[in-house]
Amino acid sequence: MTTQNTPDTDARYDRLRELGQQLRVDSVRAADAAGSGHPTSSMSAADLAAVLLDAHLRYDFDDPENPGNDHLIFSKGHASPLVYAMGKAAGALTDEQLLTFRKNGSLLEGHPTPRIPWVDVATGSLGQGLPFGVGVALAGRDLDRVPYRVWVVCGDSEMAEGSMWEAFEHAGYEKLANLTAIIDVNRLGQRGATRHGWDLDAYARRIRSFDWHTVEVDGHDVAAVDRAYAEAAATTDRPTAIIAKTRKGQGVREVADQEGKHGKPLKDAAEAIEELGGARDLHVTVQPPREAAPRPRTGGGTPELPDYKVGDSVATRNAFGEALAALGAAREDVVALDGEVGDSTRAQKFGDAHPDRYFQCYIAEQQMVAAAVGMQVRGWVPYATTFAAFLSRAYDFVRMAAVSRADLNLVGSHAGVAIGEDGPSQMGLEDLAAFRAVHGSTVLYPCDANQAARLTAAMADASGIRYLRTSRGESPVIYGPGEDFPIGGSKTLRATPEDRVTLVAAGVTVHEALAAADTLAEEGVPARVIDLYSLKPVDLPTLREAADVTGRIITVEDHHPEGGLGDAVLDAFTDGRPVPRLARLAVRTMPGSASPEEQLRAAGIDAQAIAATARGLLTSTP
Amino acid sequence: MTTQNTPDTDARYDRLRELGQQLRVDSVRAADAAGSGHPTSSMSAADLAAVLLDAHLRYDFDDPENPGNDHLIFSKGHASPLVYAMGKAAGALTDEQLLTFRKNGSLLEGHPTPRIPWVDVATGSLGQGLPFGVGVALAGRDLDRVPYRVWVVCGDSEMAEGSMWEAFEHAGYEKLANLTAIIDVNRLGQRGATRHGWDLDAYARRIRSFDWHTVEVDGHDVAAVDRAYAEAAATTDRPTAIIAKTRKGQGVREVADQEGKHGKPLKDAAEAIEELGGARDLHVTVQPPREAAPRPRTGGGTPELPDYKVGDSVATRNAFGEALAALGAAREDVVALDGEVGDSTRAQKFGDAHPDRYFQCYIAEQQMVAAAVGMQVRGWVPYATTFAAFLSRAYDFVRMAAVSRADLNLVGSHAGVAIGEDGPSQMGLEDLAAFRAVHGSTVLYPCDANQAARLTAAMADASGIRYLRTSRGESPVIYGPGEDFPIGGSKTLRATPEDRVTLVAAGVTVHEALAAADTLAEEGVPARVIDLYSLKPVDLPTLREAADVTGRIITVEDHHPEGGLGDAVLDAFTDGRPVPRLARLAVRTMPGSASPEEQLRAAGIDAQAIAATARGLLTSTP
Repeated sequence: MTTQNTPDTDARYDRLRELGQQLRVDSVRAADAAGSGHPTSSMSAADLAAVLLDAHLRYDFDDPENPGNDHLIFSKGHASPLVYAMGKAAGALTDEQLLTFRKNGSLLEGHPTPRIPWVDVATGSLGQGLPFGVGVALAGRDLDRVPYRVWVVCGDSEMAEGSMWEAFEHAGYEKLANLTAIIDVNRLGQRGATRHGWDLDAYARRIRSFDWHTVEVDGHDVAAVDRAYAEAAATTDRPTAIIAKTRKGQGVREVADQEGKHGKPLKDAAEAIEELGGARDLHVTVQPPREAAPRPRTGGGTPELPDYKVGDSVATRNAFGEALAALGAAREDVVALDGEVGDSTRAQKFGDAHPDRYFQCYIAEQQMVAAAVGMQVRGWVPYATTFAAFLSRAYDFVRMAAVSRADLNLVGSHAGVAIGEDGPSQMGLEDLAAFRAVHGSTVLYPCDANQAARLTAAMADASGIRYLRTSRGESPVIYGPGEDFPIGGSKTLRATPEDRVTLVAAGVTVHEALAAADTLAEEGVPARVIDLYSLKPVDLPTLREAADVTGRIITVEDHHPEGGLGDAVLDAFTDGRPVPRLARLAVRTMPGSASPEEQLRAAGIDAQAIAATARGLLTSTP
Repeated sequence: MTTQNTPDTDARYDRLRELGQQLRVDSVRAADAAGSGHPTSSMSAADLAAVLLDAHLRYDFDDPENPGNDHLIFSKGHASPLVYAMGKAAGALTDEQLLTFRKNGSLLEGHPTPRIPWVDVATGSLGQGLPFGVGVALAGRDLDRVPYRVWVVCGDSEMAEGSMWEAFEHAGYEKLANLTAIIDVNRLGQRGATRHGWDLDAYARRIRSFDWHTVEVDGHDVAAVDRAYAEAAATTDRPTAIIAKTRKGQGVREVADQEGKHGKPLKDAAEAIEELGGARDLHVTVQPPREAAPRPRTGGGTPELPDYKVGDSVATRNAFGEALAALGAAREDVVALDGEVGDSTRAQKFGDAHPDRYFQCYIAEQQMVAAAVGMQVRGWVPYATTFAAFLSRAYDFVRMAAVSRADLNLVGSHAGVAIGEDGPSQMGLEDLAAFRAVHGSTVLYPCDANQAARLTAAMADASGIRYLRTSRGESPVIYGPGEDFPIGGSKTLRATPEDRVTLVAAGVTVHEALAAADTLAEEGVPARVIDLYSLKPVDLPTLREAADVTGRIITVEDHHPEGGLGDAVLDAFTDGRPVPRLARLAVRTMPGSASPEEQLRAAGIDAQAIAATARGLLTSTP
């Protein structure tokens, strides 16, 4: 299906073809200079990129913060040479910079990251760019309320990832017409053919069934691609997927549509460049962003946090929900996302108070976390919430969010065996380990309602990935509402200079440790009790002082023994100083169903077990 | 669409209706006795379950190991009261047992687990049962080659999970006609309506687009359900999804199709039971399994593992691939699964040698791990393989596999900053923490090719979740092929009674530690070097002896500082004994692109950094 072109159009398309070739040449050159990288995956999408950059993207590369800027996300992040070749064509990178690709210290990493100001999110773990794009599109339409478009370049291999279909479902249901997925169907994955090869309809009918508009095109026909983008922009009732038939390595016979040519530079770059018509130096004047006045939002206000009375019984998840609602009243930049358990996590309290900043993601944790990442791209402060156990579903997204330098609040409820009867499938018992291991993360675990409320507010201003662990059951309020809980701090609940052992606990085990200390005190053994509510960063001085005084530390946690509180405490003693004698109580057996009290007893993390361990430590060591 | 029923059929359908009511009554009773649980989610699926149990399932409850048994998986695991009510109707549970639901010590947990012999897999994290079912169906058709059917009861809420669509895609592409998904569309999630409510076609057209056959039925019309199951069984060219319109809490006005009735017992159980027509005691004679002679397979043979010459340079991923191929030759029960990176992980070597036991899962890590879980249900020994970084995508599946008591081998390649230029998106830097935190796991990290080969074989006989971490780059072979590497062991590579510091390393850092020890030796400081290839379980005696002799331990790992090698070493010193002085080297900065050597240097985990740390530890402490 061709239309009659005027000579002007002919010239324009000739130029777009030339630009596509330039992007190929520069992709080949970048990978050649690096000695590694993915030129063939870049070459398949080069014409798609050329038409987008020249004629449809609206972006001010001199002002990446412009709220009217479109957003361009390469879900197929390994096509980074193409990203950087586009940056060069747009004048955002010099040719010299292009050739630093993958070199030590270069911003032009093997896969794009936001170290480059005009890159929104890190990609490279496939299946994530489209879910991120859904978040950016939601932010544009429902939060900022500005008319930017989000363009996501996807690979065909990553269509096997479930997270892509969470994104198709979310965007289709939400009718995100400002979102366009560009699927580069080059037929070849890393190790051979994809499932559907060049069967464009296999993709189109799946995507259409998720209520998207679809357009199938020859991805090397710049006129057809141009029309497809226009059709996407003109489709105002649903998102559009452009499904483009392309050839991997297009333009160079040695590699075009060949297996075994993934992820490596071309053998003879000079010859390839000649075949591509030689180097070019076309400059693209990218269309400026649309005028955009984002919805004003206040930030940083002091929330009127809920106060809880000492001695009352309140679940920390309740305090979290009430505090988040209060935070949302003080700060219009705070948003919350729910994985269809907001009544359990208590995020629903925020939803009730601020429905226009509450996003229901249904049971799709990957998309929930990705949407949060997308929203923080636009400066929103997201809280993504579900059971602690189910955040493990999104672990790769959290890992990549750290690479994206994302500022992200994650809240996991129903932690540990203390949930009781529901059994191990619902118990977060690996979450502290998983989140502590994320680069630059903050990990918080409150034991009472006032602490939970204040940490909920405090985490909004931390940087990077912040995780708050809340509990299902009620626990006594032990701190007054005036108490301060700095991130990186701890609370010493019992201390005398005569203390002979230190009990370090967090969350539900704080109350067990206090009870154990009472028992030990009756036996004439003074025990120090530390509430280590901040597991990362951890309060080194307090732990060190306790070690100096008591010489013995017992850690107790409602978590598997690896990577949680017990390991966090060690951080205080890895600088060569003397290390106290240690004992570590944690969940070492597979729980079943039982009451919360029975669970704590069976796991050996209740007051009785703590006291017994203290006695053992005192008799076995001098 | 009704057909004329004979009186016999009428009587049969009456009985099925009665059975459905019995399953409802018993669900209500179980939850009432427990004081918690999900009766309403059970009641919606009760008629679907009754017809299946009475007329279509083929299963010998007295012989759960019968290879001809069908497989019934409740993907909506919270409908456990229904599962147990079915067990009672089939004579596999007594009424007394039914009423132990959710009580301490009962096998009838809040969500089903294989502690019950006729339960294949643990569910309760939504979106997992169907992917597991795909694995069981693959095992039946392609491995055992027996004619069992796999029936998976799914919820409508979990259709939002991407993992469900990985399963639909995998099963549709593989034309798994032995698999039937039964989707209980009761319209209500935990906190309100689902996205698509009772729009059955919204589900049907999506599922059909993934090349499944679909049948839409009234899930309370036992005749229609009966026909739908027959249609599924008669559909031999593709899997079938039965999309059933149901009412949550069906049968009891107080809760039927009501919001706010999820996950709690009925207020007045006695009244509800009366409304349901009272207790019944129908017994179902489940149809016996089909005759099945599974393909014979040898197991436990001694593999002829590859030998590598000391001093040669070989990547541990290569040794893994070659060893796995050799293991597959000796043991016909070994199978391998690839996440479309088999050329990189070297799992492809197994695929080349044993194509009929090699499963391409494309880029869908959740489905890959789930398929492995499904295969081990039938006694196969799966190795699921991708980059270490991308196994994080399947973390919730690994967590749940442990609850399933699954025996599962996971192999993650391209670990750590040592991969070099590809950058952080491709680097496994949280994997040791994540896998150590899984209950009952084994975590292995070889440093040379002979060690990698032998651990690859040894892990097949370990229990639970076993993780092997391999490296992209070549490293020198330092062990002879005759060397033995028991799980839970370590290798002391340098030791004298005069050692003043112990360097504990694994994988790539072993070679850095050896170089550091050389440097220190030249400076007159004898250093012990331990290769801690088994991070879990860990070699306590060797670490303790080294601490006794040297008094100082430096750990060095290509991993974030939390939850990995450094924390594993601590296990040796948590029984109250004196703890050595400690220093811990790990990846504390966010890497970019650089050569492997530059990466190790930048992270401060190379030989130079180790030697400098040792000097510091020696001068700062007595």
